[in-house]
Amino acid sequence: MKIFGIDPGSYRTGYGCIETTGSRHRMVISGAIQTPALATFSEKLLTIHTRLAVLLDQCRPDCVAIENLFHASNARSALKLGHARGVAMLAAIEAGLEVAEYTPAEIKRAVVGYGRADKHQVQQMVKLILGLTAVPAPHDAADALAIAICHVHSIAPGGAVLPVQPRSKAATSWRHYRPARS
Amino acid sequence: MKIFGIDPGSYRTGYGCIETTGSRHRMVISGAIQTPALATFSEKLLTIHTRLAVLLDQCRPDCVAIENLFHASNARSALKLGHARGVAMLAAIEAGLEVAEYTPAEIKRAVVGYGRADKHQVQQMVKLILGLTAVPAPHDAADALAIAICHVHSIAPGGAVLPVQPRSKAATSWRHYRPARS
Repeated sequence: MKIFGIDPGSYRTGYGCIETTGSRHRMVISGAIQTPALATFSEKLLTIHTRLAVLLDQCRPDCVAIENLFHASNARSALKLGHARGVAMLAAIEAGLEVAEYTPAEIKRAVVGYGRADKHQVQQMVKLILGLTAVPAPHDAADALAIAICHVHSIAPGGAVLPVQPRSKAATSWRHYRPARS
Repeated sequence: MKIFGIDPGSYRTGYGCIETTGSRHRMVISGAIQTPALATFSEKLLTIHTRLAVLLDQCRPDCVAIENLFHASNARSALKLGHARGVAMLAAIEAGLEVAEYTPAEIKRAVVGYGRADKHQVQQMVKLILGLTAVPAPHDAADALAIAICHVHSIAPGGAVLPVQPRSKAATSWRHYRPARS
């Protein structure tokens, strides 16, 4: 089963596709769609939509998972994010794929075991879970992979979607993780 | 010159196309795209995008005008509106059309002559300006026509976009307009 995660943003949209056998997960592709700085807002939306449509056609996933936000710093930034998220969801439904939505807390709980984990903890767990040699860059790509992992962890073996649970005791121990000072 | 106005919304998206000779305007088409109540949110976005793409192909306007919102009652409703607005802008840019954006106050000022005019005043002026026998229904369609009229009023004869100004003294007098009690 293949899951395509999307972390939408009008400036940069992260994406990551993972393949899972149920117990083992492997990264297929990950990256970020950088919108041209000098483009108009509608051109940026076109870039996000076109690139995602091509990527979904290449990866042919079984499902798309996307971050769901209820809170934003202000209505203006929420409106802007909504545009990017709208065209990303449109690319998925145009490809005939279902869209699963998860809140940031659900994603953190599913990946790290703790809903208030920080970005660094999430990225390190993505690296561990997918057996990568380094954290995927840019961070939007790692976030998109985390969303895909969250979807895998919320699917029962029969295919039913379960409420997101902490992964395991080991994962829960990330609650106490503190990154080393560099 | 043809202008296609869009008043986006995830529940109902108003649209209206007007044709102008410079001094006289005529309504080409108007209506609203009602999204299926039981559809998923991504299916609603698909409905809006597909219908708008068909309408733009039928009308072949020279430009698309859309309402621009900076303020919303809360971040959640702004996020939802952003999705609908995003797929509407995408339909326009995919049709090779430029997208002009106007705030509600600019639209009211251009159509009624007063930035704090109420919905009823805007609808009555749309009816008057386009020489219609009745206010276009539903109100989202009238709002979309108002956006298109606003764009016409902000274009100089040479085609350059001017800052939106009150139309005339007659239009400004709408400031004092009070609808008759029914």
